[in-house]
Amino acid sequence: MIQIAVLGYGTVGSGVVEVINTNHASINKKAGEEINIKYVLDLRDFPGDPVQEKIVHDFDIILNDPEIRIIAEVMGGVEPAYTFTKKALLAGKSVCTSNKELVARHGPELLQIARERNINYLFEASCGGGIPIIRPLNSSLTADEIDEIAGILNGTTNYILTEMFEKGSDFEDVLKDAQNKGYAEKNPEADVEGYDACRKIAILSSLAFGEHVDFEEIYTEGITGITAADIQYVKKMGKTIKLLAYSRKVDESFYAMVAPEIVGANDPLYSVNGVFNAIFIHGNVLGDAMFYGSGAGKLPTASAVVADIVDEAKHLHRNIMSFWSSSKLQLTDISNSRKQFFVRVQGDPAADLEKVRGIFGEVEPIVLPELPGEFGFVTEEMSEADYAKKEELCGNVKNRIRIR
Amino acid sequence: MIQIAVLGYGTVGSGVVEVINTNHASINKKAGEEINIKYVLDLRDFPGDPVQEKIVHDFDIILNDPEIRIIAEVMGGVEPAYTFTKKALLAGKSVCTSNKELVARHGPELLQIARERNINYLFEASCGGGIPIIRPLNSSLTADEIDEIAGILNGTTNYILTEMFEKGSDFEDVLKDAQNKGYAEKNPEADVEGYDACRKIAILSSLAFGEHVDFEEIYTEGITGITAADIQYVKKMGKTIKLLAYSRKVDESFYAMVAPEIVGANDPLYSVNGVFNAIFIHGNVLGDAMFYGSGAGKLPTASAVVADIVDEAKHLHRNIMSFWSSSKLQLTDISNSRKQFFVRVQGDPAADLEKVRGIFGEVEPIVLPELPGEFGFVTEEMSEADYAKKEELCGNVKNRIRIR
Repeated sequence: MIQIAVLGYGTVGSGVVEVINTNHASINKKAGEEINIKYVLDLRDFPGDPVQEKIVHDFDIILNDPEIRIIAEVMGGVEPAYTFTKKALLAGKSVCTSNKELVARHGPELLQIARERNINYLFEASCGGGIPIIRPLNSSLTADEIDEIAGILNGTTNYILTEMFEKGSDFEDVLKDAQNKGYAEKNPEADVEGYDACRKIAILSSLAFGEHVDFEEIYTEGITGITAADIQYVKKMGKTIKLLAYSRKVDESFYAMVAPEIVGANDPLYSVNGVFNAIFIHGNVLGDAMFYGSGAGKLPTASAVVADIVDEAKHLHRNIMSFWSSSKLQLTDISNSRKQFFVRVQGDPAADLEKVRGIFGEVEPIVLPELPGEFGFVTEEMSEADYAKKEELCGNVKNRIRIR
Repeated sequence: MIQIAVLGYGTVGSGVVEVINTNHASINKKAGEEINIKYVLDLRDFPGDPVQEKIVHDFDIILNDPEIRIIAEVMGGVEPAYTFTKKALLAGKSVCTSNKELVARHGPELLQIARERNINYLFEASCGGGIPIIRPLNSSLTADEIDEIAGILNGTTNYILTEMFEKGSDFEDVLKDAQNKGYAEKNPEADVEGYDACRKIAILSSLAFGEHVDFEEIYTEGITGITAADIQYVKKMGKTIKLLAYSRKVDESFYAMVAPEIVGANDPLYSVNGVFNAIFIHGNVLGDAMFYGSGAGKLPTASAVVADIVDEAKHLHRNIMSFWSSSKLQLTDISNSRKQFFVRVQGDPAADLEKVRGIFGEVEPIVLPELPGEFGFVTEEMSEADYAKKEELCGNVKNRIRIR
């Protein structure tokens, strides 16, 4: 029997307990041994809940119990999760987690401790919820040099954009509705400003490129600036808008960015709607691949945590190699990154197109009768720096969205 | 250094050599040791090709060389691949393969030999080309009880159906065109009759359900009966047709089938077009997931073979557990499987709808002005057996396609 402890009895923690209870027979078979939850750490008590008898309030009870071999850290946040995880690994206990903040900030150090002790620090649930993506990156896509990852990595913003697209509503209205339905948090900043997606793409990029990508260096733009009018144009173009988190290797330069982008109907990311997530990967021999599924939610996320527990149970005295060194990957300034841009300008095409063309070249105006006094157009591919200069020259730009 | 041999220098075999040459630095890093191709077995010689110096014509040279630890069997077909693989495994050499015929027929036996010798028989490339699906099933989706797999597992038929859909052409014309372009073989039977997809879903189902699914027991229907007229109706319904290979657990019954089905626009499989493949999986805690990518082709398939070689290099003296026992999974006769059906009947709705409704209930006629003298309709959900009875009663059915 393998004794484990769960840190945190919140949404994911209670999901982990539920998954282990529900599928115990098949999980034990796949782990090769019975997995038993001995402790659940939480500040609260849960009288009447069957888990109450396992609740402890003091992490040291778990740390000092030599029977505990595996710990699921599903508390979220950097502290005290970081202190607990480090102590656990130093004590020779494998840890798995759904905690993207912690993995993005201290992943290389915690992986290094696990390597030295021949145990494991696994974090499948930190990116893409239940979608298997960390393990495929580590052990399936090993024949490839990956040159692009592009993910829809945040379910809340994808839900909001999908609703805006389907109902023609404005951001604020859909956000309010999503909050009422429990799809968005009361303080939605981490989601709608792209911070959550930023941590996730930092983790995925670090694994794909083998060196540490610092999330604080990733240019991050959320979806708060996207309006119902933008969506009208994009619909007319037969495309959609997604909040994309991506990293790309171009020659020897690495770019990473989180920003809303316009996605065409032939792109596999186009039809990833609602709270679903997807991660598109391009490898130099594999070509295109995409992993799709539930990017959040109690049971899908718990499914990934428990899959890590099973993997740790199968590798109790063996480190599962991952390629994420602590040496830092130098990201190239995005001002050199090249894209096409969709631009909306104030003015009348008859009067103002000439000026626009003087700056942006022979663009074709997109005019919507329901939006008088403005028009849109798509630029040719140019660098971010060039675009910024042209936007300033133009002077009357209402909004611009990058095109994937 | 880990010495390997490649059996067969055809499309996939030459791809394996190319991938190992192209990405040797990153592959060696991920394998933890240098991987070197010592032999390539082929009946032919390749004068002028750098591989010529490694070509051998006698398998025993490979078998009797104690330096060879890993063999990539990419010959295809059951014999002599079966004999070579068995001998290699019995001699303690790990084998990886893209050979779906062999895996579907002798998988459990070969896995058992590998287990007993603490080596590995891996077959990521046998299903879905470069798409990581076997390893995720074995080591990522371990917290779940999988109750459905539905795959677009054959690139040739998906290309043909996509072309028929986009161009409105008939099956025979598109097939001829696909043969000219090299997307379909001169003898296309294995693809267009569904036999290839059948072997693949047998392998995936065996892994998902843990017991051996005999491909010869899977009901298999190809796409040769799909006409341009069928596609016109399906387009009008806002849907598409895909050749699906699926297995499903309903209560305690297991169903498996290969057949063209009508897929709606909200289904993630809807937009899997051209030669791409995808595998949809439903787990009882994960919910929906989908894996998408290049299902065939030299380099994508070789990418999966080489990923297996890397995994075997990391597990030279350890068996990677898989759950595919030799005990046979009892498939339920599909006559009990329940579906909705799209049906085309000869006749005039004004004159014949009453008779149809007497048999199929209150169905709504779908009439296409360009197809006079017939109409279509969608039935309620019913068993295959019930449908067959009603079709016979009706007497004037031109075609029927299941609806996913």
